[in-house]
Amino acid sequence: MVARPFVSLLSDFGSRDPSAGIMRAVVLGIAPQANVVDISHDVAKYRVRDGALLLWCAAPYLPVGSHVAVVDPGVGTERRPIAVRVHRGDVLIGPDNGLLLPAAERLGGVVDTRLLTSAAHRLPVVSSSFHGRDIFAPAAAHLATGVPFAALGPELAIDSLVRLPWPGPEVGPGALAATVLYVDTFGNLKLGAEAAHLREAFGELPWGTPLRLAWRGGPSGVVAPWCETFGRVAAGRPLLYEDSYGRLCVAVNQGDAASLLDLHEDDRLTIRVEGAGR
Amino acid sequence: MVARPFVSLLSDFGSRDPSAGIMRAVVLGIAPQANVVDISHDVAKYRVRDGALLLWCAAPYLPVGSHVAVVDPGVGTERRPIAVRVHRGDVLIGPDNGLLLPAAERLGGVVDTRLLTSAAHRLPVVSSSFHGRDIFAPAAAHLATGVPFAALGPELAIDSLVRLPWPGPEVGPGALAATVLYVDTFGNLKLGAEAAHLREAFGELPWGTPLRLAWRGGPSGVVAPWCETFGRVAAGRPLLYEDSYGRLCVAVNQGDAASLLDLHEDDRLTIRVEGAGR
Amino acid sequence: MVARPFVSLLSDFGSRDPSAGIMRAVVLGIAPQANVVDISHDVAKYRVRDGALLLWCAAPYLPVGSHVAVVDPGVGTERRPIAVRVHRGDVLIGPDNGLLLPAAERLGGVVDTRLLTSAAHRLPVVSSSFHGRDIFAPAAAHLATGVPFAALGPELAIDSLVRLPWPGPEVGPGALAATVLYVDTFGNLKLGAEAAHLREAFGELPWGTPLRLAWRGGPSGVVAPWCETFGRVAAGRPLLYEDSYGRLCVAVNQGDAASLLDLHEDDRLTIRVEGAGR
Repeated sequence: MVARPFVSLLSDFGSRDPSAGIMRAVVLGIAPQANVVDISHDVAKYRVRDGALLLWCAAPYLPVGSHVAVVDPGVGTERRPIAVRVHRGDVLIGPDNGLLLPAAERLGGVVDTRLLTSAAHRLPVVSSSFHGRDIFAPAAAHLATGVPFAALGPELAIDSLVRLPWPGPEVGPGALAATVLYVDTFGNLKLGAEAAHLREAFGELPWGTPLRLAWRGGPSGVVAPWCETFGRVAAGRPLLYEDSYGRLCVAVNQGDAASLLDLHEDDRLTIRVEGAGR
Repeated sequence: MVARPFVSLLSDFGSRDPSAGIMRAVVLGIAPQANVVDISHDVAKYRVRDGALLLWCAAPYLPVGSHVAVVDPGVGTERRPIAVRVHRGDVLIGPDNGLLLPAAERLGGVVDTRLLTSAAHRLPVVSSSFHGRDIFAPAAAHLATGVPFAALGPELAIDSLVRLPWPGPEVGPGALAATVLYVDTFGNLKLGAEAAHLREAFGELPWGTPLRLAWRGGPSGVVAPWCETFGRVAAGRPLLYEDSYGRLCVAVNQGDAASLLDLHEDDRLTIRVEGAGR
Repeated sequence: MVARPFVSLLSDFGSRDPSAGIMRAVVLGIAPQANVVDISHDVAKYRVRDGALLLWCAAPYLPVGSHVAVVDPGVGTERRPIAVRVHRGDVLIGPDNGLLLPAAERLGGVVDTRLLTSAAHRLPVVSSSFHGRDIFAPAAAHLATGVPFAALGPELAIDSLVRLPWPGPEVGPGALAATVLYVDTFGNLKLGAEAAHLREAFGELPWGTPLRLAWRGGPSGVVAPWCETFGRVAAGRPLLYEDSYGRLCVAVNQGDAASLLDLHEDDRLTIRVEGAGR
């Protein structure tokens, strides 16, 4: 138990319903000294991959602590409630549906996993539809008060954990294919590829190199320069940049790239240097 | 005064305007040791019943403390600013328009009520349109610093408090009628009836029992089984379940029941066991 | 360093993406004793003036502390990252694009300004697109731990700071012209004029005085009485009132004035006493 243990929360509960606030209150009822931070409660409903990506983004910037994530279409069925301890020292808590594992990898990988069965570390009554309140938030709060990880329940085999399908990049000679994983609230498109993949496909690209982005349904595609930040192109113009998490993104300076380019999650882009021979 | 006194906030102020943040800041300016939790600030504008229902949901999960609720179309008029002490020990603070009383009942009932007139426990200047900032948040914060409840102002007769109309269930032989009170952000429909009313109408219903839900404007209604959780029906199929607060709800597994069934707040449903004689 | 230093955050990052939560986590990772309050993260994208106005509204109600504001279309370009110390003792932190200065004036005016160059008070890696996380939140957090203001970087000339255009009122004999600065989430229209300007144009106006509001595109305008609060007119009727920040506002009791009157940000209103000779 540290002076101000850290607990983060992420869910698709939205901001109108009281569910997220109730989780905060449950944590502070058990662990009044905790710092409780909401990562997001507006993950698109049931979009486990979105939740996994946002937690992956946030994880390196969170103080070591207990991180609850709930995007949980299978709540109340046989899917398992789990806690995952990672190499950095954090514990990730939520449903065993793949939501936690990308962040776990980013924090050094899973070192121990528990099934959340301990009655002493749940609320007295466990509902069939709100495990965030009844199982996950209490587990995080008890850890914050100093309860040892192993007290949460029996160990699970790490290779028994459910993993999400995750569309990766395809690095060809002079071409990079990647999938739109997420459209952020600015309309920027986060791709399933990192800046390292771009270097692998094209070598070191000078800032301003024009790239042609093509996709099925986008007849001629679009040319976007490789830029260090938005303001390197005129307002309303597209660009490809490395976002602040190391991920390749398509944006429009001061505009909504998803709308303006008519690009959507799961669209598959092919990126080539414009004017280079195929 | 406890080590980390608890203050919760609920309003219809929305998340774009600074009003909710200002209330948090006012509380912490007066009571920097407080744990301040937002239940919701996205209650539908002016919908006092929605706010009352959400506070009712949250109340049992909140640590004992001071709970501010502001859905207040009458701000600045003759409606009274009040604080209500309940049997559990909490104080509920807000306008005297019925918003606080369902939660007060759930926390054991009202034991004392005060009119918030004490100038020492308001901000120095009280506006006519933002009592959340000027009267309600300061009252909660002063309680959190140890100010006694009776210092907030003169006592009010409990039976003088304004009560909301609240559409209850009608339990007939083999039928249960209930009103849609609230559509949550998943599109689940919270009814003005609890699981106990279902048992009263039909006896103990086995999981999976098909129920016919009928309503004016829904020509033939819909058949939905009585289920312990969403995942007991296929994705896209309706169900009736007991939500995590004990309330009957209509849902569609991984779908938006309100849209798919074209059901809305204040619609009145009649529930019967499908295939049972009338 | 005080017992519970105060840090506030404001941005246009929205509530779905993890950016706001990451800023909160970064602050608490550096300054775990801080009270961190979100003013708003739903400022309209890229609307620097909106952010400046909301911070101006909130500033007097915030405990003395460090206030981070990020509405930053120029992130990663030559625009400067700054911290501004004001007479009240607060430090305002964000981009040098005019966002901070109205609030700074409201807190007594700027007394010292720094360019945020100190590597010790940034995150180890600074991205080109998320200075809120990498520069601004860390600066606020370090101040909260007791780092002196001057350690953040070299001094800047106060008159070198970028200022926003800000449409002011025009006070004529018997007429007041003012611009719609902001439409709040209730649909109330905040004008670029204060109650003092109304008195200057018309003398002391009795409550209920009918005022004619006219604007280009609003053929005959509308008559709205000067009222102390919403409930002084019938539901659905317009009024002019002084909002809780001292600003003139147009509202409709329990309705959305912007929609009902078809008024928008940047519309210019002329206000006259109805029936008075021109």
